[in-house]
Amino acid sequence: MTKPLGFEKPLGMRDYLPDLLWKQRQIEEKLHRCMLHWGYQEILTPTLEYYDTVGEASATHDSKLFKLLDRQGRTLVLRPDVTAPIARVASSLLKDEPRPLRLMYNTNVFRAQEKEAGRNAEFTQAGVELIGDSSVEADAEVIALAVACLKEAGLEEFKIAIGHVGFIEGLLEEVVPEKSGRDQLKERLHNSDYVGFRQDIAGLTISEDEKNRLRGILKLRGGADRLEDAEALTINGRARRAVRNLKELWAALQAYDVTDYVLFDLNLLSSLNYYTGILFEGYAANQGFPICGGGRYDDLFKQFGMDNPSTGFAIKMDRLIQSSDLQPTQEKKTIYIRFDQETRNLALKRAMLLRQEAIVVTGIGEPSQTFDQIIDFRGGHEDV
Amino acid sequence: MTKPLGFEKPLGMRDYLPDLLWKQRQIEEKLHRCMLHWGYQEILTPTLEYYDTVGEASATHDSKLFKLLDRQGRTLVLRPDVTAPIARVASSLLKDEPRPLRLMYNTNVFRAQEKEAGRNAEFTQAGVELIGDSSVEADAEVIALAVACLKEAGLEEFKIAIGHVGFIEGLLEEVVPEKSGRDQLKERLHNSDYVGFRQDIAGLTISEDEKNRLRGILKLRGGADRLEDAEALTINGRARRAVRNLKELWAALQAYDVTDYVLFDLNLLSSLNYYTGILFEGYAANQGFPICGGGRYDDLFKQFGMDNPSTGFAIKMDRLIQSSDLQPTQEKKTIYIRFDQETRNLALKRAMLLRQEAIVVTGIGEPSQTFDQIIDFRGGHEDV
Repeated sequence: MTKPLGFEKPLGMRDYLPDLLWKQRQIEEKLHRCMLHWGYQEILTPTLEYYDTVGEASATHDSKLFKLLDRQGRTLVLRPDVTAPIARVASSLLKDEPRPLRLMYNTNVFRAQEKEAGRNAEFTQAGVELIGDSSVEADAEVIALAVACLKEAGLEEFKIAIGHVGFIEGLLEEVVPEKSGRDQLKERLHNSDYVGFRQDIAGLTISEDEKNRLRGILKLRGGADRLEDAEALTINGRARRAVRNLKELWAALQAYDVTDYVLFDLNLLSSLNYYTGILFEGYAANQGFPICGGGRYDDLFKQFGMDNPSTGFAIKMDRLIQSSDLQPTQEKKTIYIRFDQETRNLALKRAMLLRQEAIVVTGIGEPSQTFDQIIDFRGGHEDV
Repeated sequence: MTKPLGFEKPLGMRDYLPDLLWKQRQIEEKLHRCMLHWGYQEILTPTLEYYDTVGEASATHDSKLFKLLDRQGRTLVLRPDVTAPIARVASSLLKDEPRPLRLMYNTNVFRAQEKEAGRNAEFTQAGVELIGDSSVEADAEVIALAVACLKEAGLEEFKIAIGHVGFIEGLLEEVVPEKSGRDQLKERLHNSDYVGFRQDIAGLTISEDEKNRLRGILKLRGGADRLEDAEALTINGRARRAVRNLKELWAALQAYDVTDYVLFDLNLLSSLNYYTGILFEGYAANQGFPICGGGRYDDLFKQFGMDNPSTGFAIKMDRLIQSSDLQPTQEKKTIYIRFDQETRNLALKRAMLLRQEAIVVTGIGEPSQTFDQIIDFRGGHEDV
């Protein structure tokens, strides 16, 4: 006997035991059907990609990438997100497929963790990409689909908060002349550091009226009437176009009958820097972290040499499972069969028939778990 | 616009496009149900494991491991197989679960490739482990389940070839005194190098009778009558016990009514060195490579400090998909809806209802693919 090995797992790595995985598989199945009925087709990209191809195009911070070298000395990364690899495929193997192209996925992604903080370094994401359509109708479709998916997955109370990259950036461009000042304010908003945001504004050499416009951003969270307030803060150009874009979106979302699940949050900024327009995050009533996130990325495909304005979202499976009220349906009846050498033929053939009726049948070893029924074939009679 | 990126993927990495993946998902679903009805529960282990914990216990050759370093300087590996990680979980988190423990999995594994040879470096395996039962009934169960799974997956012509580690090793121990000589003969058999095998035998300083016994191994491929021939080659001890073990297995497989799919091949040796008893490989009529492989591994758990004689198998999904005659069922009807601003409400609400009936409905962009039906809502009437 060799020296016993340890049982440790690398930082942020998890085992999924049967009970939890059973719930996850049922939710995955529901999401899959839902996306399918909206016309999306599943795709799967490899776990390993070249850093130069996809690691760089991905929006994940370099320090969070799992990197390794291949035999040729090229740097590989473990897929940090799915959107960039799908953009690679859509620009190459699926280059000639008609647009818009609707793709979905359900796979694991990797983000290296600094230290043990209960954060997963590997987690499952299910999502869609709607590729090659710049219309607000496309944005509305993916948001309505996100709502449909979350409902289907057994989430009862949740909200999708919607923002617009063009609004924040446009308004800041109107008011704050230096890029460094704008970047710092965006950083404050991204970190929900509203005290710091107000302090920064106080320190700017702009008029009081302009400062008030910036402070006004913090109030832009709520229903569709917030869009009127937002419009009042803008003068023209990019920020105003963003508000009009959101108004059109709202009208389309009304047609989908999903506005009960939607609010606007014009402070919203993503850590993913590839978003270029409407962006959104979904929150369950009982969780502080977003359960899903998405938005429009019109420039990502340019990195692969194509002009394909696109939009999409990703659901974080572990958070969805935690919040879902779905009660996993038990597999059908379970039966344990007891037999000996003489009755084995009879017992095993009966087992095969029962399994065809979707009954779970186990026969060897002691019946240690709980079974709905034990059939004893020994002694030539069935003792039920 | 930044410089366009390349579309390359690392050696042996693949994209799975919708048509192929659709077939794979349907086969996975069938295997999942089948294993479930035999009492197996799904488990999922992380992609990354410590080399010291699982890389070493795994039977994959070191040169085929994808390795990387974590921030603490410890070596991680991308899961090269599933049996060793499951043994880790069964010896730790599931240590107190009653035995036998029936676990199943469906996940990807990694084997680094030397050069472009069309071999996948990442591929999906679905399989089971029956943990903590040393009986031949357990071996019969997993072989019968392998047959049931392959049939369920739409494989029409296939055979499971069964061998026994104890037979080859026992017979060689009886006849060839040096370990190096025995290892070389085993290597020849494993590589199906029968010419080399015969040359090695000719060079041995043993009696002609003993040489004939060794040459006899090559003829031990066929039905249950081969077991009589095998027994005649053995004197006593390990090899003879192996033959008796196979005879008991045959009787149990008859009870499962799967002997039409089974043959014996006592030359069979696996590249996985953890097998200790009965081992087997499944072949489809149209492929040279095994579609599945499995066997008994009674010592692996000792590396994790437990005594858990076990048996199991793994199916190679890409090979199964290639050989399967399963015709993927198409998703239901597909409908394209055409609408304008005035009719959007009507059209999108209709779409939601149709999707609830499991119809695939798409509405934005031109109807570029083929749809079963196009509904035009424009002009206030439905033009079907």
